[in-house]
Amino acid sequence: MPDVTDDYGYWQTVPTRWKDNDVYGHVNTVVHYSLMDTVINEWLIRAAGLDIHDGDRIGLCVQSHCEYKESASFPDTIRVGLRIGHLGTSSVRYECGLYRGSDGVLIAEGHFTHVFVDNATRRPVPIDGKLRAAMETLAHP
Amino acid sequence: MPDVTDDYGYWQTVPTRWKDNDVYGHVNTVVHYSLMDTVINEWLIRAAGLDIHDGDRIGLCVQSHCEYKESASFPDTIRVGLRIGHLGTSSVRYECGLYRGSDGVLIAEGHFTHVFVDNATRRPVPIDGKLRAAMETLAHP
Amino acid sequence: MPDVTDDYGYWQTVPTRWKDNDVYGHVNTVVHYSLMDTVINEWLIRAAGLDIHDGDRIGLCVQSHCEYKESASFPDTIRVGLRIGHLGTSSVRYECGLYRGSDGVLIAEGHFTHVFVDNATRRPVPIDGKLRAAMETLAHP
Amino acid sequence: MPDVTDDYGYWQTVPTRWKDNDVYGHVNTVVHYSLMDTVINEWLIRAAGLDIHDGDRIGLCVQSHCEYKESASFPDTIRVGLRIGHLGTSSVRYECGLYRGSDGVLIAEGHFTHVFVDNATRRPVPIDGKLRAAMETLAHP
Repeated sequence: MPDVTDDYGYWQTVPTRWKDNDVYGHVNTVVHYSLMDTVINEWLIRAAGLDIHDGDRIGLCVQSHCEYKESASFPDTIRVGLRIGHLGTSSVRYECGLYRGSDGVLIAEGHFTHVFVDNATRRPVPIDGKLRAAMETLAHP
Repeated sequence: MPDVTDDYGYWQTVPTRWKDNDVYGHVNTVVHYSLMDTVINEWLIRAAGLDIHDGDRIGLCVQSHCEYKESASFPDTIRVGLRIGHLGTSSVRYECGLYRGSDGVLIAEGHFTHVFVDNATRRPVPIDGKLRAAMETLAHP
Repeated sequence: MPDVTDDYGYWQTVPTRWKDNDVYGHVNTVVHYSLMDTVINEWLIRAAGLDIHDGDRIGLCVQSHCEYKESASFPDTIRVGLRIGHLGTSSVRYECGLYRGSDGVLIAEGHFTHVFVDNATRRPVPIDGKLRAAMETLAHP
Repeated sequence: MPDVTDDYGYWQTVPTRWKDNDVYGHVNTVVHYSLMDTVINEWLIRAAGLDIHDGDRIGLCVQSHCEYKESASFPDTIRVGLRIGHLGTSSVRYECGLYRGSDGVLIAEGHFTHVFVDNATRRPVPIDGKLRAAMETLAHP
């Protein structure tokens, strides 16, 4: 596996599931978004202290994107690298690299843009405090 | 299609999705539970007035089961029949028949057992009022 | 509902499923890709004659993208419009508009880019014959 | 965590995904089947040598069942134990125990019954050779 550690500040390995494979025998391209979504939210909960059940702010996704390079197949595991490509007042762009666990080949690159809003009013709120501090540690220069 | 109208009091057609097919080219057996879950909850919301967002009681699934007879493949649609096989004080057993839309062949039969609980305490509460009245209309003799 | 018929040449209504809602009570943003994927493949199979089980060419997704405008919640239905934004020798860009069935509000716009390849060699092959003719009918000027 | 090692001969840890949580904030009951399906198939591929892409026999699911004891929530991991409860000529019953990774609490027990069939004719074939030998190592007395 190439040394891509420097490109992403957070790494998590996500195994594929039987149902991820589609009729062509490869992980369906929709699944890549679920893998990225999982890693982003797990990082938000574990590292950045986001409370998904009772918190007063949530991250609404306004845009997502993925470019596919190679295929993967169950039971492959996928190594997902995460970094913050842009950190605005209320918005953040998460960038992910997905690598096949068995041989380290890059299979896809994608991003999600979230706008943080008040859970009740759905109006944008500043990303501040512990959440912003955590995001700054993943900022990509 | 055989006349199975009398066996189930509520019918809904659910189209399959591309991702429902697995590597063997058929709708994966996990998906059947999602189809039944969808029809049960849609009936609860539309016909029985269940409020999934702010209601004070929810139906917790304690058991589910499915027997598979024939396969289906995207882009098949599935006709799902729903009836109530048992209605207790706090629990209810939903029974479903899944039929291939194109030729009416029975592909699977399954059931879900729900116990209704208070959303806050998670203690069982009686199924009463409008909810019970609606369920009685689907009771299978 | 606004008259958006002219923007897309093919329309299909896809119901949401119970499991599409995430913990925030809305259809999860990953699901939108599954809805677009479903409509694209159903159109390919039904209108353009693609054989997903035994055909000698398949469409590999090399890029996908979605912009989210409004939320939807189960049991909403989603009206999906499909057009072809670019048709190259071997590649095609499908563009989708997703509208809430109940009030016709635009909830998302997205696209998928497929490259058609030989099923065995995975080398690009020309989009020709019946497939190209069908795609030309959906071409957006 | 209680010592349940003796109850199941094969163990695998499956992380939950963001999308597994439903609107009530817990892993949706459909997902449990996907977790069991994943562990069964991963064991079949890695330990029992099943070829899902080009093999001449496949396991068709004819029945599945799950009883739910406790809830789990993303980002919990689930420890899944697998054993063979019944091994017939052509059929096999896989039994699973699902335990919450954080505290070892049993959240669900389920089973899948597969009938092995010829990939082309879909007629039952005997479970023999390496596959049977592998299954015998998981047999529950």
